[in-house]
Amino acid sequence: MIFRQLFDSETSTYTYLLARRAGGEAVIIDPVLGATDMYIKLINELGLKLVFAMDTHTHADHITALGTLRDKTACVTIMGEQTRAECVSHGVTDGEKIDVDGLVLQALFTPGHTNESYSFVMPDRIFTGDVLLYRSTGRTDFQGGDAHKSWDSIMNRLFKLPDDTLVYAAHDYKGWTVSSIAEEKKHNPRLIGRTEQQYVELMNNLKLPNPRLMDIAVPANLACGKN
Amino acid sequence: MIFRQLFDSETSTYTYLLARRAGGEAVIIDPVLGATDMYIKLINELGLKLVFAMDTHTHADHITALGTLRDKTACVTIMGEQTRAECVSHGVTDGEKIDVDGLVLQALFTPGHTNESYSFVMPDRIFTGDVLLYRSTGRTDFQGGDAHKSWDSIMNRLFKLPDDTLVYAAHDYKGWTVSSIAEEKKHNPRLIGRTEQQYVELMNNLKLPNPRLMDIAVPANLACGKN
Repeated sequence: MIFRQLFDSETSTYTYLLARRAGGEAVIIDPVLGATDMYIKLINELGLKLVFAMDTHTHADHITALGTLRDKTACVTIMGEQTRAECVSHGVTDGEKIDVDGLVLQALFTPGHTNESYSFVMPDRIFTGDVLLYRSTGRTDFQGGDAHKSWDSIMNRLFKLPDDTLVYAAHDYKGWTVSSIAEEKKHNPRLIGRTEQQYVELMNNLKLPNPRLMDIAVPANLACGKN
Repeated sequence: MIFRQLFDSETSTYTYLLARRAGGEAVIIDPVLGATDMYIKLINELGLKLVFAMDTHTHADHITALGTLRDKTACVTIMGEQTRAECVSHGVTDGEKIDVDGLVLQALFTPGHTNESYSFVMPDRIFTGDVLLYRSTGRTDFQGGDAHKSWDSIMNRLFKLPDDTLVYAAHDYKGWTVSSIAEEKKHNPRLIGRTEQQYVELMNNLKLPNPRLMDIAVPANLACGKN
């Protein structure tokens, strides 16, 4: 398998490029508009053909490359069916399998950070977007975010995966690249020792400033990064 | 295998933590002093025992955590035998195997960025320090750096490894986390289409400013980060 984790330092976003084999088909998850040319160069150097570009959710901190990648590569753009970004080619449903040349990612509806957040599951790893971060969880205070749903997605969906499943998130702000379900169960400081109600109170009182680019990024992303 | 790639955003340094199994022994490569407490917390959370802390070379851009990790965990500190950092516990020689609880890293002498740079080889991956970077190579203008030796280390040592060997470098400045020997052979813009003499001319005319922390980092690192 080809697996590339790429970091956008301006917005601390992780983008993932995956393919089963050199020369085969590829999928990119949570691509950032400003890095589009780099992705295409890397995809070409690896001899890959981009067939899918997916966002885990409507991002509020960077502008998606989905629309531009579709224009430049004719890939299919994918988000969860609940998205308001009507420009995407395909809205996946919970449980749906996306087959990339034999590499299968299963969509898992994990609302909480937003009301249209999906994770994508493979046998040994999961891409959690912003719902579960490394030793943290995604904020729940805009775009239909809901701390109860965040708790439910994490506890009753993500934490039901095998303990050794690797967790790949859409962001990190401390230089970590990966975690695991077992670790987050045991050591995530937002979750351990808390009841659902205590977690909801914590999340509802984070009082975080809005993302710097939010007023630009959300409308742009509802147009697949093309407005 | 447990494999953690950790990024220090201040100096764009990659640190690697490896262990064969949860609960087993671990090795850390190129640790950064300011992140020592984070490493120890993570090592504890993973139930690991740190037995080796290694630097690929005397860094000029950050201060090593080797001495502090030795004090705090009683691990053995390792650098190449050519290092002037006499405080390290063990100087490895070319070809020497370091056995971490069954996980074997073989030392490979790869001078060029400095005159005491080593890479560490595993069956599927190599830690190249600064001699080979992702689509780049480490500067050769201080600490015994030598563009001829850089060329020789890359062409006649690193590029003799199997093509699918994953390359993990000590730095990246564009958000990449990994590459492969095949890719660097084909696409490294400093190397492709150049003769050794042309590469030497390129490297000798880079005219890069010194690393910001060089005057602090080098003497500190010759004392294992403890002066």
